[in-house]
Amino acid sequence: MENQLLAQRQRVFGQGSALFYAEPLTIIRGEGVELFDDAGKRFIDMYNNVPCVGHSHPHVVSEVSKQLGQLNVHSRYLHESILRYGERLTSLHHSGIESVVFSCTGTEANEVALMTARAHTGGVGIVCTDAAYHGNSFAVRQLSRPSNNPHVRSIPFPESYRCEATNPCDFFIEKLEETISGFAEDDIPFAGMLVCSLLANEGLPNIPEGFMSKAVELVHRAGGVMIADEVQAGLGRSGHWWGYEVSDFIPDIVVMGKPIGAGIPLAATAASRELVESFRKSTRYFNTFASSPVQAAAGNAVLDVFENENLLENVNKVGIQLAAGIRELGSDHPQVGDIRSHGLFIGIEWVKSSDSKEPDARGAVVKVNELKELGFLIGNAGAYGNVLKIRPPLVFSMKNAEDFLQALGHVLAH
Amino acid sequence: MENQLLAQRQRVFGQGSALFYAEPLTIIRGEGVELFDDAGKRFIDMYNNVPCVGHSHPHVVSEVSKQLGQLNVHSRYLHESILRYGERLTSLHHSGIESVVFSCTGTEANEVALMTARAHTGGVGIVCTDAAYHGNSFAVRQLSRPSNNPHVRSIPFPESYRCEATNPCDFFIEKLEETISGFAEDDIPFAGMLVCSLLANEGLPNIPEGFMSKAVELVHRAGGVMIADEVQAGLGRSGHWWGYEVSDFIPDIVVMGKPIGAGIPLAATAASRELVESFRKSTRYFNTFASSPVQAAAGNAVLDVFENENLLENVNKVGIQLAAGIRELGSDHPQVGDIRSHGLFIGIEWVKSSDSKEPDARGAVVKVNELKELGFLIGNAGAYGNVLKIRPPLVFSMKNAEDFLQALGHVLAH
Repeated sequence: MENQLLAQRQRVFGQGSALFYAEPLTIIRGEGVELFDDAGKRFIDMYNNVPCVGHSHPHVVSEVSKQLGQLNVHSRYLHESILRYGERLTSLHHSGIESVVFSCTGTEANEVALMTARAHTGGVGIVCTDAAYHGNSFAVRQLSRPSNNPHVRSIPFPESYRCEATNPCDFFIEKLEETISGFAEDDIPFAGMLVCSLLANEGLPNIPEGFMSKAVELVHRAGGVMIADEVQAGLGRSGHWWGYEVSDFIPDIVVMGKPIGAGIPLAATAASRELVESFRKSTRYFNTFASSPVQAAAGNAVLDVFENENLLENVNKVGIQLAAGIRELGSDHPQVGDIRSHGLFIGIEWVKSSDSKEPDARGAVVKVNELKELGFLIGNAGAYGNVLKIRPPLVFSMKNAEDFLQALGHVLAH
Repeated sequence: MENQLLAQRQRVFGQGSALFYAEPLTIIRGEGVELFDDAGKRFIDMYNNVPCVGHSHPHVVSEVSKQLGQLNVHSRYLHESILRYGERLTSLHHSGIESVVFSCTGTEANEVALMTARAHTGGVGIVCTDAAYHGNSFAVRQLSRPSNNPHVRSIPFPESYRCEATNPCDFFIEKLEETISGFAEDDIPFAGMLVCSLLANEGLPNIPEGFMSKAVELVHRAGGVMIADEVQAGLGRSGHWWGYEVSDFIPDIVVMGKPIGAGIPLAATAASRELVESFRKSTRYFNTFASSPVQAAAGNAVLDVFENENLLENVNKVGIQLAAGIRELGSDHPQVGDIRSHGLFIGIEWVKSSDSKEPDARGAVVKVNELKELGFLIGNAGAYGNVLKIRPPLVFSMKNAEDFLQALGHVLAH
């Protein structure tokens, strides 16, 4: 069965579409943190952040289904629920975030953020970090890998595990200063900086304390705006609403996606009304599927679940226990180089040895596949592909954590 | 009520988000071709192509809802229904269309098409038409309006209403030849041409006979690929499955969006397996919300309705009657310059006088608002904004057509 599907997939999608695991899974049902394959085998999902309220949450299913039966239309007519959702979403942010542009994907929301920064500042130069992922369009891909576009320049992502400088914060701030100065030297007007608030794709490093707020100062002083990509970091993942609260900075523009619609394509770019209006005026942006009553139903239902089920509390409670358990198991393991955690977002640096800190991506993949065989789905990520990435739906329970720790103990023991 | 919502919208979305009509509508329910406002007033929808099977179609609602209750997850696991949908969708095309890349919006699908053309040919130069709209990202916007990017160059859109050349086909083919040669002269390797198969945003002009097939020849001879944007033109709108059947050419890449998911964000870029694999290899593209079981449920349900309700037959039958009725009403009206129709896609050139052919966008907007007051929703579009755009859901009935013709007669009479 699996092989037939795989062959069909290679024909229909073409070879080279991304699949997880040495033996790909055929998943046919999801409920809460559980996924079931075509043989009825149960897995505990510790990877997927989109179904943040749990797979197939009944409240989300019912609200979206109800709306689909009433109206699903674009936003060139007035509709109340999407405005109510916009207000709920922006009210979860710092007071400078007032207005919002909805789109369908994180890629689109980052496109909007770039256009907003450039429209508002009149600049074009953007600083990003060097191992990020922000999306798949032509313009957004340039933020994700080295490019030869002189308008997009990266700094080494700030971290304190491998950095050998005496003061890592100063070290990375200096890199940022140099990069911003570089734009000025090349007569490229500066527009701002775009960064994932938790550097999730870089491997969830510990960002040197003070770096982010100093970066905002530098960016503002150079006339730019600070954009926080909260697509992975945001909506309660860290135990706070937004990653920028953990990394301790105040962004001018926030970009949201993945979890906010629980799988209904929904993304958002929010900022001050002034910034958003700079964008609207300069682009006359319209997005057919965005700002629809169905996006509103999904977004509102997700926020309802956060309230009804005290999800933030659960993230903090279970996240702390899970991280503590992992630290206990990993503390004397020679290949566990570092463990970083924020709420229910945990990264384990898998290295050849704690002394060398040399990344062991191949070994990490082996552990990911071993855990899958035991019924636990995690991933690997990071600048070197060696960070075990643990990012379960936020309804992950204490019992789930205990079960996982037992499996992890088993996998670490051999 | 309306004014309160409008004020709320200007705060939450910022001023400048697109709204229809002098007095915006607050739509709260849709069913078939009918939309209802917050006062219970009924409108016949003759604009929206996304709900091609009719608003809130029960089969689409039920299939999508059922799938939401089972599983809604990304495509790094195997899932059967999205592959079955891919096969159904590609099988509706000419035999060279074998494989597909799913995304969420027409913008994303056009991004994929551009990346595919460039990855496969090794070129970068793209020809488009000069009054098109293909999407809202940085790269795709350059296809929509004059840009200073030397890699994207436009030709005047081919049409036979205002073109004064003796042989309009030769005239526009010459423009295309010059543009392709221009790339060579500037040492910019050529990648291809991207065009809406029916030039919908240009105003649905009559494309000079033979132009499109000759354009394909020129593009191929120069080493490029031909991309048909079927986001508006496709999926039965014209009475054929695809606009390229009407305009009589064989594209290498087809881009689909809007109607294919009936409002669930779903878009697709399809081509030969070889082209798709060139794209996959060069980009390692992944799209979180795309290729999901919920996209599959929506896409499959839409195709089910086409089969169950003989929609193509309806489009041809009603489209012909509707166009004939409009022609009868418009034949001796001094401001109706030209009437163009393909199935249930009809454009009426609103001009200051038939002799001058001078576009009258302001007058067109007046007629759009008058028809709205009578309960019929159409739009205005085209290179000059003066084309009355009639594009109802494909379940539009003979009775709907009769009612509209009566209203149109009334509006034309004064």
